[in-house]
This record gives sequence, structure tokens and C-alpha cells, in this order.
Amino acid sequence: MDFKSKLEKAITKNNSLLCVGLDPDPAKFKKGQSQFQFNKKIINETANLVCCFKPQIAYFAANGASGVEDLKKTIEYIKKNYPGLPVILDAKRADIGSTSEMYTKEIFDYFGADAVTVNPYMGLDSLEPFFNRKDRGIIILCHTSNPSSADFQELSINGQPLYIKVAQKVVQWNRKYKNLLLVVGATNPDQMKRVRRVASDLIFLVPGIGAQGGDLETTLKNGLTKNGRGLIISASRSIIYARNPRQEAKKLKDEINKHR
Amino acid sequence: MDFKSKLEKAITKNNSLLCVGLDPDPAKFKKGQSQFQFNKKIINETANLVCCFKPQIAYFAANGASGVEDLKKTIEYIKKNYPGLPVILDAKRADIGSTSEMYTKEIFDYFGADAVTVNPYMGLDSLEPFFNRKDRGIIILCHTSNPSSADFQELSINGQPLYIKVAQKVVQWNRKYKNLLLVVGATNPDQMKRVRRVASDLIFLVPGIGAQGGDLETTLKNGLTKNGRGLIISASRSIIYARNPRQEAKKLKDEINKHR
Repeated sequence: MDFKSKLEKAITKNNSLLCVGLDPDPAKFKKGQSQFQFNKKIINETANLVCCFKPQIAYFAANGASGVEDLKKTIEYIKKNYPGLPVILDAKRADIGSTSEMYTKEIFDYFGADAVTVNPYMGLDSLEPFFNRKDRGIIILCHTSNPSSADFQELSINGQPLYIKVAQKVVQWNRKYKNLLLVVGATNPDQMKRVRRVASDLIFLVPGIGAQGGDLETTLKNGLTKNGRGLIISASRSIIYARNPRQEAKKLKDEINKHR
Repeated sequence: MDFKSKLEKAITKNNSLLCVGLDPDPAKFKKGQSQFQFNKKIINETANLVCCFKPQIAYFAANGASGVEDLKKTIEYIKKNYPGLPVILDAKRADIGSTSEMYTKEIFDYFGADAVTVNPYMGLDSLEPFFNRKDRGIIILCHTSNPSSADFQELSINGQPLYIKVAQKVVQWNRKYKNLLLVVGATNPDQMKRVRRVASDLIFLVPGIGAQGGDLETTLKNGLTKNGRGLIISASRSIIYARNPRQEAKKLKDEINKHR
């Protein structure tokens, strides 16, 4: 099953747009516990509350080969125990075509992720090796949730900001590839409204809720598609380091559903 | 010693602006040979002809944990046997600040690279964790060498293309951080001329010579600083897969010096 079908089924089954981000920082949890063990607990506690999981590769890569193995085990664990839940690997990759080809091997073949985040700066041929993996979801950075996102993303090109140019290109590319999504942060609800206007059918991966302080209600109002879907609301630190991650995830899931 | 001082010393010692890119694709070499063994041979054959080495992390990551270990061994081998030669890890990273922090651990602490390539799309706070590593070189994508680089990099902002806006920002940031460089591809010599005009003192990492077909003479004419330096000319496939890598590297090094 391709990423988008799998995602839509999971949204229906768990009645949830929530994505739990797996960003395990060993400095923040019990000594002796592996990143995999930390993740396993979070996964088991939240699996029937989410539509997908999103490990952030940097947290594993920081620990070298052993971190890489913990990430692989994490994804294998989800696939084995919760086969209906897709895994987005947050990696923000892209390079010249031959190199991006290697990244697809890392992300889809070695780790087995269902979807990946990519960076548009280098243009279409840097992204095509990802796009060509038709059964995977490719999620292109559009307007990100960090404070400096405006540095380049909001520069104006004939009256339109760069992030809108990116959204327009992705809409155009998606007519051919059909497996594209966008990253649109929750910290700038006005920008989300503008992106939704040009990308009416694309699914947005939405970071910035939780630790980053994005406004949930306005985000949903501005980003949901007509059928009350079209958004994957991602939270990481605010859930995984909560005293009760399940309770925190349930609260956010319910809060999202209240506004759908 | 910081990256730029180490680089300048290596340029002087080996009288070379050549950087050999280590992109070992197991499909292209002898079965049973590890990526580390392949690299070791290339390193030993070319070490006194280059000013630095540039492993491309994707080629190793494609092989999972064992590739990661081969990359680590490769960098350790260079540091042990050729301690005067800096290592640029080509990784094109950047994410929200807390995640970029993790990438600095991967790239500088785990792998021990002297410099890294990063992607500017997310703006300053996504790059600062890298910039703060003052003894390392941070090389920001400006105008890349791939065919689709124009998709976004050449969009016009009040008459100036995005890549020039990036160059201007980096020049400004470098007044504070002093450890920044730019990636400017050799496949577009006119663009290199424009970047040199706004970034007169920055060192450019120049991919695109060799397999990608950039014009060396014009590149040097448009990119060299007044002292005949300011460029790191990188070639990977055209050297590492040559019948005689040392001879190929020597030829390119001499060709570069002819025009300095």
C-alpha cells in the first residue's frame, strides 16, 4: 500500500491527525536506557492515538552507528507491531541526483521508512530520485516552524514569497508524481492559509505545535481540507518527555478533533 | 587549528586547490572491498596532491551502520596519516535549532569532520548551531552545480536572484562568525562571477568540475581571489573511478595551477 493510502486508513482507524515525533535525546532520559527502548515505550503507549510516527534522524545519527541501529530497530518495531501506521523519517535531505539516489537507499531501503522530508533549495533534479519512489511519501519543506524561517522563505518574488513559489512548484510536480506533501509550520497560521489556497489538495505535515508554541485552533482552521483532513499535526518533545506521554497524546488528539 | 588555517596551510604545502571527493559506490568497485578500503587507496594515492578531502555522507549512509563505520574509519585514517589535511563532510544538513545541534554532534563529534556543507533554506537559527563551532568550517549552499539549481536559486527578488541574497546574508553572518564559506558550482561560471562580486573574501567550495562538466578555466578566472586562492575545486567520480586516480588528480591539480 502506498504512503498516502496507509496514512488515510490510519487517520480513519484511530480517528486521529496526530503524529508523534520520536526525537530521543539520551541526555533527557534514564541512564542505561537505549534510544530504541525509550521509543518502544512511547510507541506502545501512543500507537492507537496517532496516524503516524515521525522519528528525527539527527537524534540517532548523533550517536553514530549504534544510534543508526536503534533507529532501524525503532522502525522495524513499528512495522512489526503496528503495521497500519506509516513512518515518516524526518531527514530534510536533497543533493545532486546521484547523491539523492543514495539517500533514497538509506531512507527507504535500509531504514524502511514510508515517507521522508526533503529540502527544495536545489530544485527538481535533486528531488526526483525521491519522487520516483511512488509508494513512498515525499514531504517538501515549504514554510518551516523555526523563528528564522522568514530569512529566505519570505523573500518576495514578483509580489509572492518564496514559500508560495515552492508550494506552486510542488503542486505542479505532484500532478505527475502524486506522492508529494508539504511541510507547513504551525507557528505562522497566516502563511498556512496562503499555502492552503495554492495547494488545496496536498497534505501538510505540521510541526510547531507543542514545544514550539504554535496555535492549534487557528492552524486547523487555516489548514484543514474540506473533509476535515489534509493535516498531520506533529508533536515531539511535549509528548515524549511528558510525565504521562499517553495522556498528553490523548489530550492533543482530542483537542485536534474538537476543531475538525 | 581552525579549519580555514588548516586549509590555507595545506594549499601552501601541496601547492593545490584540489579537493578529492570520496563518494564510494560499492556497485562500482571490486566485490568484497569495503568502502573504507576503497577510500584508503584513493587517499594514499592523492594525499600530497590535494588541499582537503570531501567524503559524501550519503554514499556511506546508504549502507547503514556498517557504512557509517566505514566513514568514521575513513576520517580517522586521514587524521592519523595526513593530519595536515582537513576533511569536509558533504552532508547538506540544517533543521530547527535543537535538531541542528544533534547534527553538529554527528558531524563534528562522532565523525570528527573539520567542515560541513549546510542548506540555507530554513534561515539563520537552523545554521547557528553549526556556526557556533568556531574551529570548524561551515559551507553554505549558494549556487549549486546541478541542472535544476535555477528552479529556486535564480528566482528574482527585487532584481537580484535568491542565490545572491544567500551570498549577501552569509557575508553579513560571517562578520560575526568568521568560519563561513559558500558552495558555488562550476557549471555556471557567470553566477560564480556574481557571487565573487558580493563575497570578495569568502572561500568557495566548487563542485561540478569533472563528471558534471564544468569549465575549469572560466571557473578559475571568475572565482579566484586576488592571491590566486579562495577556491576549493572538488572532483569525485572523475578521479576515484579513473584507471589511475593519482594521475587523474595530478592532471587536474596542474591544470588548476596553470590558471592561478
